[in-house]
Amino acid sequence: MAFIKTPVRGMPEQTPLETELRNYVLNQIRKVYHSYGFLQIETPAIEHIENLTGDQGGENEKLMFRLLKRGESLERALKEKDGELSAEGLRFDLTVPLTRFYANNMSDLPIPFKVMQMGPVWRADRPQRGRFRQFMQCDIDILGEPSKLAEIELISATVEALSSLGFEDLVVKVNDRRILRAMALYAGFPEDKLTDVYILLDKMDKIGFTGLRDELIAEDYSLEAIDKYLGLFRELPESTLSRAYFENNPEILSDIEVFENLDQILSATRALTGPEVNIIFDPTLVRGMSYYTGTIFEVSLPGMAGSVAGGGRYDEMIEKYVNQPVPACGFSIGFERIIVLLEEQGLIPGFTDPRTAYLLDKDIGVDRIVEFMQEAAKRRVNGETIFMTVRRRNVRRQIEELEELGYTQFEEISP
Amino acid sequence: MAFIKTPVRGMPEQTPLETELRNYVLNQIRKVYHSYGFLQIETPAIEHIENLTGDQGGENEKLMFRLLKRGESLERALKEKDGELSAEGLRFDLTVPLTRFYANNMSDLPIPFKVMQMGPVWRADRPQRGRFRQFMQCDIDILGEPSKLAEIELISATVEALSSLGFEDLVVKVNDRRILRAMALYAGFPEDKLTDVYILLDKMDKIGFTGLRDELIAEDYSLEAIDKYLGLFRELPESTLSRAYFENNPEILSDIEVFENLDQILSATRALTGPEVNIIFDPTLVRGMSYYTGTIFEVSLPGMAGSVAGGGRYDEMIEKYVNQPVPACGFSIGFERIIVLLEEQGLIPGFTDPRTAYLLDKDIGVDRIVEFMQEAAKRRVNGETIFMTVRRRNVRRQIEELEELGYTQFEEISP
Repeated sequence: MAFIKTPVRGMPEQTPLETELRNYVLNQIRKVYHSYGFLQIETPAIEHIENLTGDQGGENEKLMFRLLKRGESLERALKEKDGELSAEGLRFDLTVPLTRFYANNMSDLPIPFKVMQMGPVWRADRPQRGRFRQFMQCDIDILGEPSKLAEIELISATVEALSSLGFEDLVVKVNDRRILRAMALYAGFPEDKLTDVYILLDKMDKIGFTGLRDELIAEDYSLEAIDKYLGLFRELPESTLSRAYFENNPEILSDIEVFENLDQILSATRALTGPEVNIIFDPTLVRGMSYYTGTIFEVSLPGMAGSVAGGGRYDEMIEKYVNQPVPACGFSIGFERIIVLLEEQGLIPGFTDPRTAYLLDKDIGVDRIVEFMQEAAKRRVNGETIFMTVRRRNVRRQIEELEELGYTQFEEISP
Repeated sequence: MAFIKTPVRGMPEQTPLETELRNYVLNQIRKVYHSYGFLQIETPAIEHIENLTGDQGGENEKLMFRLLKRGESLERALKEKDGELSAEGLRFDLTVPLTRFYANNMSDLPIPFKVMQMGPVWRADRPQRGRFRQFMQCDIDILGEPSKLAEIELISATVEALSSLGFEDLVVKVNDRRILRAMALYAGFPEDKLTDVYILLDKMDKIGFTGLRDELIAEDYSLEAIDKYLGLFRELPESTLSRAYFENNPEILSDIEVFENLDQILSATRALTGPEVNIIFDPTLVRGMSYYTGTIFEVSLPGMAGSVAGGGRYDEMIEKYVNQPVPACGFSIGFERIIVLLEEQGLIPGFTDPRTAYLLDKDIGVDRIVEFMQEAAKRRVNGETIFMTVRRRNVRRQIEELEELGYTQFEEISP
């Protein structure tokens, strides 16, 4: 029998202690988001191929796992030249399913719809440390709230969720796609090249100013535009509000509301999260997805490359599917990164329930089993975990195994 | 854009209140199993096709969702005549993944390995009420425990988990595959027809004695065997121990240990679960899967067709994959049935957290938002859920929406 012991490539399996940690993290995040009134929904893992191959998925579409058609419809597809062998795929994010769920249930949902999703997604990416082909996403979104109340709540709640896990010195970077756009246009980049410029700008935390300049030159943009652009970032003082800068330079961004909105989000979230969280205006923040229309933000930890959470406002996406305007804003926690970081930073919580093992003599009679199971039942009601098992000959090894699982008390039960 | 609003056929999506109920049920079951020391693991949704097409999956294999190969390996497969288009599939149960997990991690796992799994599985079954193509399974298994301690714990823990959800008058039916076999052989059915006889016997709760007799006759078994067989079931008094019967009829089952073992399991679980649970010896209980080797059991509710949980001992299955004997016993809760029954029986719990909505005036300034978010933060720490939102023009409708979600207090916040 060709039985294969190892999991499919890039597909993770979780041991008991790993699963316990994951449950703890999911519950902690869920608890915080629930206290803000976010409502959890669940959508199926499988979605229509039509919905997964719009264009909102970007690069992720190429990494999609497709399901093979079945029975007659497969036979038909195989007979056709270039027949479509697949009508469904595994979701590669939680945004496509949310959009479909919202379109399907809109009339029954509250306004605004504050929604939370926690579930696995699948991408046929190249597996590497901390990157799997099946991984959890934890998203919150507020649909139907046009004001900055959405941003303030999303940032506050996500900072609180991450802090509740023990992370310290969080840095929240905030920007606005409209500022990104105004700065690039002011520098003189052509409108149809803005996305390409953003892609390079996004690499700046890795390649630095000089690297960015080199890459822009390599793409044949005018030297004048490049140096004007980089000059803007040098002039803009980091970590402050944006108002002071843009008010003095109205030729860059004349729409006062944009930076007023941003500054209010910055001030409010600073007041709410306190001095231990560093919330900064970062004009170099890009966020990859093309659907963002306004505020964008991400959370990072000092000394760690990349972000642990990211999101932003996407006011125009849902309208395409429901034919009415639905302002929207979301934040997504990189769950698998969080797990790796908790392990690296030694933030794994201890076992909160007292754990006792009853080691029964191998010749124990059924009456004694019942007697001690009744005793165990009483202790379980009080929140204890009681593990009953037959005492092995090598009881020392047995106790070691159980100690690794958090057991501290051992009671040997005679026949 | 060919966007499809409805989910894929047979694939469920869960609204906020449904998800809240599902989370409650999962947590309740997990809490009980955890208190017995069951360790939760997680395995990926995707498994090797080789593992899914052994023969332990039985009928479920035909219902498997297969993943389409990608890139070059797909091209190669399409060029071959009858090329295999799929190398992986979605799991159709949690037993195949458990077996693979155990084989892969055996040396790191405690003995016995008391394991719990909760996760979705996929079957391309005909969708109908309460039956979906993606559904949750909640399994517990004890690997490496040869004695009846396994059965006693599995039955006690599952009865406790179901009782904790509010179900009353549980009936636990217990049988042993060896008794099933002894009775059929004693009646005179040929050894190679036993499985076929079991399949018919399994229908008896639907078709009754007469229906069973008709079906056995239609299959051309000897009338003598049929009537001897049915006579055995008539003689066996329901709901009692098996010992009295088999001791007086040693020609049916001479292996005393089989019915002694069964009777001890019955007595012990009766003593542990108390009089409100009806635990009976049911010689007509079959359980479908061919891998069972000893005790089999299921839980049903009076007035409800079918079972809500089922399991048994399968001492020979895992050995095939790990080349050493591993006694095993498991119990699986039909999670989706449980959800339907909780709704039908009005057992849905109330909201335990006080829920308050702050309805903010639409012209509220950011300072007031911060003020009330700080107040909300204090209340959230005390376990309250505080939903902040802009007061809509139709505030009556808004309050109705929130009341449906468990909100009982509403505070209007002026600018």
